[in-house]
Amino acid sequence: MAGRRPGQTQTRADILAAARNQFGRRGYDGATIRGIAAEAGVNPALVHHFFGSKEQVFVAALNLPVTPAAITEAITQGPRDQIGERVVRLFLGLWSAPETRQSFLALVRSVAGNEQIASLMRQFLEHAVVGPVSAALDLPPLRLTGAASQAFGLAMARYVIQVEPLASATDDEVVALVAPVLQYYFTP
Amino acid sequence: MAGRRPGQTQTRADILAAARNQFGRRGYDGATIRGIAAEAGVNPALVHHFFGSKEQVFVAALNLPVTPAAITEAITQGPRDQIGERVVRLFLGLWSAPETRQSFLALVRSVAGNEQIASLMRQFLEHAVVGPVSAALDLPPLRLTGAASQAFGLAMARYVIQVEPLASATDDEVVALVAPVLQYYFTP
Repeated sequence: MAGRRPGQTQTRADILAAARNQFGRRGYDGATIRGIAAEAGVNPALVHHFFGSKEQVFVAALNLPVTPAAITEAITQGPRDQIGERVVRLFLGLWSAPETRQSFLALVRSVAGNEQIASLMRQFLEHAVVGPVSAALDLPPLRLTGAASQAFGLAMARYVIQVEPLASATDDEVVALVAPVLQYYFTP
Repeated sequence: MAGRRPGQTQTRADILAAARNQFGRRGYDGATIRGIAAEAGVNPALVHHFFGSKEQVFVAALNLPVTPAAITEAITQGPRDQIGERVVRLFLGLWSAPETRQSFLALVRSVAGNEQIASLMRQFLEHAVVGPVSAALDLPPLRLTGAASQAFGLAMARYVIQVEPLASATDDEVVALVAPVLQYYFTP
């Protein structure tokens, strides 16, 4: 990749480094495309050209394998009494696909190991997930962070630590085990 | 510490490094005090002198702030219909105390960031926690790993990522939120 278009690749990397800095220092709300572009020494139009919106810059800076909009839509669309199973199946599908699994593993590792990345993840969760989803579902934000904690822990136990029998359980067994917990968190 | 008794400190560190290697290569069951001593180039009696049992060597190698026996006892002792609240309060107490909080933070970070440590944690959970506790409670092991996943995720969300409103919630609010989940996992 770096060999083909070194200038463009370097510029993209500079923008993402500046974005991590700006989001880390100013928070998600305080950071701007203009400020990120200034720190990277490029025109704001170039940031828009590479990434699109501020949210998309954030997704790229955190190397998220899915957009918050896709997660929010999957959680909020569909029958409320099946939300637990729907969220667990979405989660298992993302972790099963090889192309997203590696990104998620890297994300869990960097969130746990790097305070700047943990801070970005906190801002991402609060602004792009907890806020919109709790509003859409009329759910106290604390319950949504409970659901997020179960999702994080399932990732740690099943995919990072790989503790048995959870690591080798089938998707249906994990759904039967964890869906009632998410249904509880998503029920006010 | 290293300045006072450099020989003893170095020997202790050598034994722990050998222990991590032996547990990583042979597994918890396969590793022996004798093998750890041989790799560290010391007499097995010295390993016993420094640490005691194989389980205690393991606890020291992982830098666990509590012994598995203490965790197992806290989970299995007391009324079964209050086990969810009891486990959450034990968890919150360990994370609130400054002396154990830092060790737990370091543990979560190293488990997520280091595959060898993740493998040790897997063996520790399977042999020292999941086995004994599921036998004592007559509980399918899968449910116990579900409870462990919720505990890991609560640590990640509340203490590592510090997502709000979960990070600032009082202990009583967290107990009200999470105890029903652990009660569910601990109920066959």
